Amino acid sequence: MTRYNELDTPAVLIDLDRAEANLSKAQAAADRAGLKLRPHIKTHKLPYFARRQVELGAVGITVQKLGEAEVMADAGLSDLLLTFNIIGPAKLARLKALHDRVTIRVVADSADCVAGLAATFTDPAHRFGVFVECDTGMGRCGVQSPEAALALAKDIIAAPGLEFAGLMTYPAAGKYHEANQWLASANALFAASGIAVPAITTGGTPDIWNMQDASGIASEYRPGTYIYMDRSQVAAGAASYDDCALTVLATIVSRPTENRAIIDAGTKALTSDLLGMVGHGYVVDYPEAKVTGLSEEHGMIDVSACATKPRIGETIRIIPNHCCPVSNLFDQVHLIRDGDLVETLRVAARGRVD
Amino acid sequence: MTRYNELDTPAVLIDLDRAEANLSKAQAAADRAGLKLRPHIKTHKLPYFARRQVELGAVGITVQKLGEAEVMADAGLSDLLLTFNIIGPAKLARLKALHDRVTIRVVADSADCVAGLAATFTDPAHRFGVFVECDTGMGRCGVQSPEAALALAKDIIAAPGLEFAGLMTYPAAGKYHEANQWLASANALFAASGIAVPAITTGGTPDIWNMQDASGIASEYRPGTYIYMDRSQVAAGAASYDDCALTVLATIVSRPTENRAIIDAGTKALTSDLLGMVGHGYVVDYPEAKVTGLSEEHGMIDVSACATKPRIGETIRIIPNHCCPVSNLFDQVHLIRDGDLVETLRVAARGRVD
Repeated sequence: MTRYNELDTPAVLIDLDRAEANLSKAQAAADRAGLKLRPHIKTHKLPYFARRQVELGAVGITVQKLGEAEVMADAGLSDLLLTFNIIGPAKLARLKALHDRVTIRVVADSADCVAGLAATFTDPAHRFGVFVECDTGMGRCGVQSPEAALALAKDIIAAPGLEFAGLMTYPAAGKYHEANQWLASANALFAASGIAVPAITTGGTPDIWNMQDASGIASEYRPGTYIYMDRSQVAAGAASYDDCALTVLATIVSRPTENRAIIDAGTKALTSDLLGMVGHGYVVDYPEAKVTGLSEEHGMIDVSACATKPRIGETIRIIPNHCCPVSNLFDQVHLIRDGDLVETLRVAARGRVD
Repeated sequence: MTRYNELDTPAVLIDLDRAEANLSKAQAAADRAGLKLRPHIKTHKLPYFARRQVELGAVGITVQKLGEAEVMADAGLSDLLLTFNIIGPAKLARLKALHDRVTIRVVADSADCVAGLAATFTDPAHRFGVFVECDTGMGRCGVQSPEAALALAKDIIAAPGLEFAGLMTYPAAGKYHEANQWLASANALFAASGIAVPAITTGGTPDIWNMQDASGIASEYRPGTYIYMDRSQVAAGAASYDDCALTVLATIVSRPTENRAIIDAGTKALTSDLLGMVGHGYVVDYPEAKVTGLSEEHGMIDVSACATKPRIGETIRIIPNHCCPVSNLFDQVHLIRDGDLVETLRVAARGRVD
């Protein structure tokens, strides 16, 4: 049996028991809240965990890119929500091919986007479901008002080959209450207009444990990061370090000064995502250490506060600021249970940028 | 013939004429300064350009990871400097396999690191070259003083299977003068001790056009980013936007408000590297636009200052803050000449994290 610290570094370790506990806890919370769970696979990019999420009760999965959808469809996942505007003939053709073999729906936030979908999907006997994306405070994509959502829903309904699937939002972290109010207003407007809203899908890990606030408003919740958790979720209060399932294993390659340690993991392993925090990760094995800087292949660690200081050749585990893009940097991840290697998986949906 | 803007997005475009001009200009500068050029391939990760750099006069290449060295050796590159401490039996075995088939040398900055190399390379008839890495102001790896460099060189010389190759530094950006002074002091100390310094290798693109400052001190220069250049190098004064050869092609997927445009390129295409700058790239086609934020798959652009504003479906090109990690995010890049696609290359050394 291989112990985790015998693996070559840098490497991504996934603690299976922690991941499983995170999955089960969220599914139970969704069940209590009366919400369907549709996990976002951008975090793990692995059919292995997508299937596990469905086994535990998820109604399907969320993907962010056509390439991710193709990988997951190939792996047998059959109910996909692609939360991205699909624009242009090349991508629309790929989307049509997916629609012919799995249940897949997308979002749209403009008449232009709906027009492309309407021209692609024309069969009233096999209609294609489209959600209206709503900007409820994130300041990213989405229609800006319930009135605009209603107008776009009418465009969708007017297209013979499309089906209005409902409303979708990705709420800004910490603003779930405002997002729910926005959606409730939209619900009221649609009801007054006599247009049924088949589903309302919201989500996000930062506010996952306030999911029940959406009860009676939304029907579906789409968390992603919750499977692994990370330093940003600890900062947001959504997790403790003991919940974090993904760590980056690194080796101390230099101790140039009394208080400086250098590891073989930089932005190519940990990313440069700060997400409003100071420092580049939490060092599990040396909690007093601070990851003060990263270059591409080096991590700079201040070990001045550590009673015992790491030695050259020693391996350490780091909980990254943001686990999702870490999955995108590694061709493979190692599944670990009780410190032992269980299996090494190829990150099947890594690098699917389009 | 495919035009660049017909490619599916996000995509990496490499302007061949610009890259070629950057390569030639740096080689000429090195020739004038009497320095050998040993380009760092971490920027492009492509055998195609590594070979071109050697054709133009480079003495060999620099790599940062064993995996990169393996890819380049497989592609026929035969003189490699690996500027990273190699620690641990698994990596030392891979290094030994490389030493048996190409000219490869590494750096070391500690007795521990040298001890591992000395135990691995034991054949006085086929000695392995080791540079002493010197911290001349970067605050990363490296011995802290010329005296420490001398002591470590003696360790290397004492090992029957090792050869002292010289001194190596990566100077902090803008601190090339201090770095050169450090190296000159070390040179004097080594001379006084009767120990020859076969080579001194320095580098960095930010100060590439001050390369001649190292004349008579260093023997070799190792720039990486210079082949593509990027927004950080423009900020450092080492390039203009017209020199930048790498752009990320993205599509406008949403125009949720009058002044907001959303593209299908986020941190998974552009990285979250800021390198001290504000914003996430330079929009070639809309110079007044500001890339104000990125999430994994979305880029948020403020188009308020643009006289004409981009429409949904339009493609735009972005010069990233930092081109090197962008190469690591894409499985392939497109070579472009006069706006036409010449060839699409697999990024052979992408993801070689260990």
